[in-house]
Amino acid sequence: MAGVFHSQVALRTLLRCLSPHSTLYSAVTGRTLVPGLSGPILRPKHLQCSVWARDHHAGADRAQPSPTAAPERLPFSRVTPEDVAFFREMLQGRTITDPDLLVASNMDWLKSVRGHSELLLRPQTTEEVSQILKHCTNRNLAVNTQGGNTGLVGGSVPVYDEIILSTALMNSVRDFDAVSGILTCQAGCVLESLSQYLEERDYIMPLDLGAKGSCHIGGNVATNAGGLRLLRYGSLRGTVLGLEVVLADGRVLDCLATLRKDNTGYDLKQLFIGSEGTLGVITAVSILCPRKPKAVNVAFLGCESFEQLLKTFQLCRGMLGEILSAYEFLDRDCMRLLNTHLKLPNPITDCPFYIVIETAGSNPTHDEEKLHNFLEEAMTSSLVSDGTVATEDAKIKALWSMRERITEALTHDGFTYKYDISLPVERIYQLVEDTRRRLAGKAKSVVGYGHVGDGNLHLNITSPSKDPALLAAIEPFVYEWTAGFHGSISAEHGLGLKKRNYIYYSKSSQAVELMGSIKTMLDPKGILNPYKVLPDDLR
Amino acid sequence: MAGVFHSQVALRTLLRCLSPHSTLYSAVTGRTLVPGLSGPILRPKHLQCSVWARDHHAGADRAQPSPTAAPERLPFSRVTPEDVAFFREMLQGRTITDPDLLVASNMDWLKSVRGHSELLLRPQTTEEVSQILKHCTNRNLAVNTQGGNTGLVGGSVPVYDEIILSTALMNSVRDFDAVSGILTCQAGCVLESLSQYLEERDYIMPLDLGAKGSCHIGGNVATNAGGLRLLRYGSLRGTVLGLEVVLADGRVLDCLATLRKDNTGYDLKQLFIGSEGTLGVITAVSILCPRKPKAVNVAFLGCESFEQLLKTFQLCRGMLGEILSAYEFLDRDCMRLLNTHLKLPNPITDCPFYIVIETAGSNPTHDEEKLHNFLEEAMTSSLVSDGTVATEDAKIKALWSMRERITEALTHDGFTYKYDISLPVERIYQLVEDTRRRLAGKAKSVVGYGHVGDGNLHLNITSPSKDPALLAAIEPFVYEWTAGFHGSISAEHGLGLKKRNYIYYSKSSQAVELMGSIKTMLDPKGILNPYKVLPDDLR
Repeated sequence: MAGVFHSQVALRTLLRCLSPHSTLYSAVTGRTLVPGLSGPILRPKHLQCSVWARDHHAGADRAQPSPTAAPERLPFSRVTPEDVAFFREMLQGRTITDPDLLVASNMDWLKSVRGHSELLLRPQTTEEVSQILKHCTNRNLAVNTQGGNTGLVGGSVPVYDEIILSTALMNSVRDFDAVSGILTCQAGCVLESLSQYLEERDYIMPLDLGAKGSCHIGGNVATNAGGLRLLRYGSLRGTVLGLEVVLADGRVLDCLATLRKDNTGYDLKQLFIGSEGTLGVITAVSILCPRKPKAVNVAFLGCESFEQLLKTFQLCRGMLGEILSAYEFLDRDCMRLLNTHLKLPNPITDCPFYIVIETAGSNPTHDEEKLHNFLEEAMTSSLVSDGTVATEDAKIKALWSMRERITEALTHDGFTYKYDISLPVERIYQLVEDTRRRLAGKAKSVVGYGHVGDGNLHLNITSPSKDPALLAAIEPFVYEWTAGFHGSISAEHGLGLKKRNYIYYSKSSQAVELMGSIKTMLDPKGILNPYKVLPDDLR
Repeated sequence: MAGVFHSQVALRTLLRCLSPHSTLYSAVTGRTLVPGLSGPILRPKHLQCSVWARDHHAGADRAQPSPTAAPERLPFSRVTPEDVAFFREMLQGRTITDPDLLVASNMDWLKSVRGHSELLLRPQTTEEVSQILKHCTNRNLAVNTQGGNTGLVGGSVPVYDEIILSTALMNSVRDFDAVSGILTCQAGCVLESLSQYLEERDYIMPLDLGAKGSCHIGGNVATNAGGLRLLRYGSLRGTVLGLEVVLADGRVLDCLATLRKDNTGYDLKQLFIGSEGTLGVITAVSILCPRKPKAVNVAFLGCESFEQLLKTFQLCRGMLGEILSAYEFLDRDCMRLLNTHLKLPNPITDCPFYIVIETAGSNPTHDEEKLHNFLEEAMTSSLVSDGTVATEDAKIKALWSMRERITEALTHDGFTYKYDISLPVERIYQLVEDTRRRLAGKAKSVVGYGHVGDGNLHLNITSPSKDPALLAAIEPFVYEWTAGFHGSISAEHGLGLKKRNYIYYSKSSQAVELMGSIKTMLDPKGILNPYKVLPDDLR
């Protein structure tokens, strides 16, 4: 689950994982984004980025840029004392130039990408954001909008000297309609604060993330965050009802509807959901919130094959139906790592596959009975070979930890190569098996876990240490395999800076070209979050 | 419910309702779209179209065009014998020029709008659609894409001589994944056929419409159809996972993902959902389908006030939670019309407001128990004053008919002015009350019913006969009132030809301008479904 990435241990894992992929930040020199690496930009077409990947893996030839490295700085203006004076007048005490205060905003959460912006603006109102962007467009100044800075693909920090526009002070709830469950708030509201606000009113947010203590709802929307409740409540594309967005030139686009139905023209807000701050600055959000469930149960089950695990999923959807809120899996190798490195005992007998099922409903007795009936059927029909159920909080947490602490266990197993892949659900374990076969003798562990309910696989490969030969055997294989089954090479983290050039593995050149046209239409000078999402060949 | 519009009786009602709004079709002359009415086009800004409405109501001054009348024909080429020969070679036996065969495709379902196209094309494949559009772009020929031709706003038929591109022969299911419930099919599949296909596999479509026997899934997506299951399964923006679209110039845009999660770049498919065929031709759809419920129950309840009805909704969401599938209402005046004109007896005691609640779940015993507990609580706390429950099919249908046959009852009450409005849920009945007050002594009946769960009100006003003075008292009042509470003047029917100039009541001029830019970007010659969705002042 996304949540595990947010612990300190997980952070270290990811840092170790990311370092071979990225020369963006050198801990030795403290320099970032090594402009010398950028060199001449190739024009990759559909799937040609596999060549880039090979070039990257081959070594540090500076004439062959890594697809994850930043391109050369674009010819934006540089911030002048006059610009700072302009902003100081508008945002008194909220125009930050102190380098010490800028450090945290220049560095991403994984400490893998660092920009060197010298100006951080903290507007409080939509009007202020509008004035800022108007000025930036007139002056051709680049802008990096930043929420909680919890992104995983280098999308939330400046690459060079972009002005950082923080939404941190835009944190008011504007309205909550307790009848319809529609919340309207500013973009800088922290997800956890909104959750607390809603729980007091017997509602919950339709999304939940491990980063909830820091991430902003505006950032969640801008990155189309998935998270833990997607199986049950669907994506933000359905639950976000309205957005207020400031366009690059300062125009305010008011699409802040609080309606479940509205078919008057094109649904413009969709453009900004998942566009990672490259098309406009989201200043306010309205979102449909579900009622708080009255009961939560968790079952931990074992299966003899992935085919049985999928059959169990079908049975589960039929018998648990409307109360099913999570259907997660881990394989035997994950369990081995949990046992070995974290001393977590297997709560059931040894099996090739394990399932974590969560229910959330409005009637505890009914939910327990449904779960009981389902389990009886699953056992009787031999789909499931063993299992245990928790209804109390402590045991629920213990069972969830078998799923949530896999990332932590991996950190103890060795250097980890991590992939976040979305595939048709019947294919997700095939990728693990094919990778395992391919890497036989080369990798220490090849493990698979993830959200079966969402078709989202976390494929992880460990090695005693960083191993370029192993990486060359993994990539582009994993991306090509994923593309071959029309999967997504970024299920929920977005593209940001790091994955922008991998887009062709999941999107056609026609589609990418159209994305470029949209960018040009909405942000003709390209000042909004430059170097992100779109591949370098479009620039 | 949308379903009622599809009966013959409802058709007549709507025809009668629409005639004062539209001079598009004259039963006397048989001529359509009276070009003389088009005259010089004003350039209305935000809310200025209220002026148009008044002009329109004031009478038949031909210098003052009705906002619903078609604008002048744009300078597209006319179909030549060479064009027909080109299409005949490509689509043998599927290039229709016989005027008798073209009649049905030129006329909308309500018989309120009629074009005079002389060419109907029936492609079977995406490649054929691509070839057609490539030719049309090269030749500057306008195209009207037509699914089941069940639209209510004149969007699905040609306005002048546009080539009709029918999706009727593109009706194959490409794939169904019984594990994930993801269906992939061609755009011309009839909704009911898909429902039958899925029900045999223990799934249902996430949308249901009265027009399901005729409407195509491609048309449903192109109009972002709402329908009866929106409260439970959300909008098509969340359930449609992928689209294949042919752009105006013939390029095929493959966004036909079958993934629940994919954050690789902008979500282009959203542009085409609800764009009513003006941005591209949808040729295939992938959609996430829910499991078929095992139990359905219906309760019919009475409330003393709308406030109690809303409190009951809150209670209901809490206690029925995940099994609630519909929460509809009608007022006492609706009941009076049902009693008087259709002799349908009130199944409970007389009340100011009535509620129809439907549950759909996976366990019949649990669902009945939840419903029982909820009803007991609602009665004990005096939120509800009377009620009856149905679990058998025949009684369920009888209770639903109290909601579904209101439109039919209205046809017997007199000439009906109909409005399909979306509002914050706590406002929906206020509009009925304010309208009733405003029209005191002028109207025969002012009634309100609709989908409380979706904030979607059907406001209907009857009069012994067509009454321009009454209409002038209703419009622009209703639209202005709706705009004042940030409502939508078209909750689910779209804008099409008839409502295109009313768009400013629900969308800002900034938003409409951006819609125009999107149209220009994707269809620079404007050949796709011209005269629809966007207001005349953008052309």
